[in-house]
Amino acid sequence: MMKYFNFPDRRSIRKYSDRAISIEEINEILEIASRASTTGNMQLYSVVVTQDSKRKELLSPLHFNQPMIKTSQAVLTFCVDFNRFSKWCEYSDATPGYNNFHSFISAALDTTIIAQQFCAIAESKGMGICYIGTTTYNAAGIIDLLNLPKLTVPLITITLGYPAEIPELTDRIAVNGFVHREEYCDYDNEMISNIYGYKEEIEDNKHYIAENNKQSLAQVFTDIRYKKEDNIRLSNEFVKVLKQQGFFE
Amino acid sequence: MMKYFNFPDRRSIRKYSDRAISIEEINEILEIASRASTTGNMQLYSVVVTQDSKRKELLSPLHFNQPMIKTSQAVLTFCVDFNRFSKWCEYSDATPGYNNFHSFISAALDTTIIAQQFCAIAESKGMGICYIGTTTYNAAGIIDLLNLPKLTVPLITITLGYPAEIPELTDRIAVNGFVHREEYCDYDNEMISNIYGYKEEIEDNKHYIAENNKQSLAQVFTDIRYKKEDNIRLSNEFVKVLKQQGFFE
Repeated sequence: MMKYFNFPDRRSIRKYSDRAISIEEINEILEIASRASTTGNMQLYSVVVTQDSKRKELLSPLHFNQPMIKTSQAVLTFCVDFNRFSKWCEYSDATPGYNNFHSFISAALDTTIIAQQFCAIAESKGMGICYIGTTTYNAAGIIDLLNLPKLTVPLITITLGYPAEIPELTDRIAVNGFVHREEYCDYDNEMISNIYGYKEEIEDNKHYIAENNKQSLAQVFTDIRYKKEDNIRLSNEFVKVLKQQGFFE
Repeated sequence: MMKYFNFPDRRSIRKYSDRAISIEEINEILEIASRASTTGNMQLYSVVVTQDSKRKELLSPLHFNQPMIKTSQAVLTFCVDFNRFSKWCEYSDATPGYNNFHSFISAALDTTIIAQQFCAIAESKGMGICYIGTTTYNAAGIIDLLNLPKLTVPLITITLGYPAEIPELTDRIAVNGFVHREEYCDYDNEMISNIYGYKEEIEDNKHYIAENNKQSLAQVFTDIRYKKEDNIRLSNEFVKVLKQQGFFE
């Protein structure tokens, strides 16, 4: 099954066909993606491509065994990387000063930009992608598995393959719900109701609320999916990883 | 001058024609861009569009008076936004727990993904964009000017307009310089030389080194463009902004 999804009707793909994608094809897309904007042309990222089934077995539990890790043709871990640039500095009799939070943020933007450009290009070729949103949850484990040195941090994971499904388009809030002209116009209850009200009417969401014994969709987010206690724990763990990797010196 | 730049030969555009771009056209691109992946479909971003010339005058010094702020048809400030989502939670009798670093990182990924998707779509329509890399440098000033509430942080600024130039493609390192198969292969001096050596041979870079009285291109980066002392100061200021905006509670 092949389908070209263009920008307006793109969707994340979680079921992949067995059509292979070679490292050469992935490299070609990454090469094109590297034309995307990058801070001072420093290209502060690395990409680790996992295709070997044994390596996928090891990576899978670090992403809570989400099935796309094993069923995709490739898993791409996009990593913040000031290691390579700093090594170039040292090689060139220059003293790098990038072991700090500002440098991490700059590199995180670079890394996310190339990751998204990779997705847009892959989708324009008929491939499907899915962001696996758990990379920073288990960053320490991924660092160990991928052998990541200091001044690198895994940030984004994308699974890649040709689509074996055409899922429904998921909902999005209306564009005027997130665009502000000239200055930010803060949201009152009426605006919030106008922006989000439709979500409670979606059948899938109604089931979701009921099966979780909640009164509203938002409660599913705050009480089950993205809980405060988990967020605090993950915050502490990620700060620890940033320190360990040398970005808070 | 109109030219369609596709992915492989896209370039950042710093000189814009006077062809207008309306808020409706911008909203249309943003609507399409919002189909990009987002954490748990939470859409943790807002976009402030600056087109008024007086507002641009005020924004310009916050970006070190880079001329594209004034000469572009629109300046888009992409902001991390957990304010709107948290307000929805409160409105829905749910207790949000997103005033922490993990939530900031999740929202920063969401924000960067839609920003880059916006760029890819705008470029596919013949428009030109440039990332203004100084948003986090003066985040506090931008927060004041754009009237950004707690749980929002300006992260990325993009200038937009039709190209009035076709600049040279800038160099990029070879794809095998940043791609790793199965695990990260750390860089030794020979690899660094192979990856970056070509940069010292580029005429513009030779001039750049000479006019700055440096011995290597890397020294221009470490001693002039991205200095350790600046990075440390900017780190401290950005952490302060994250605390002020409520992401370290």
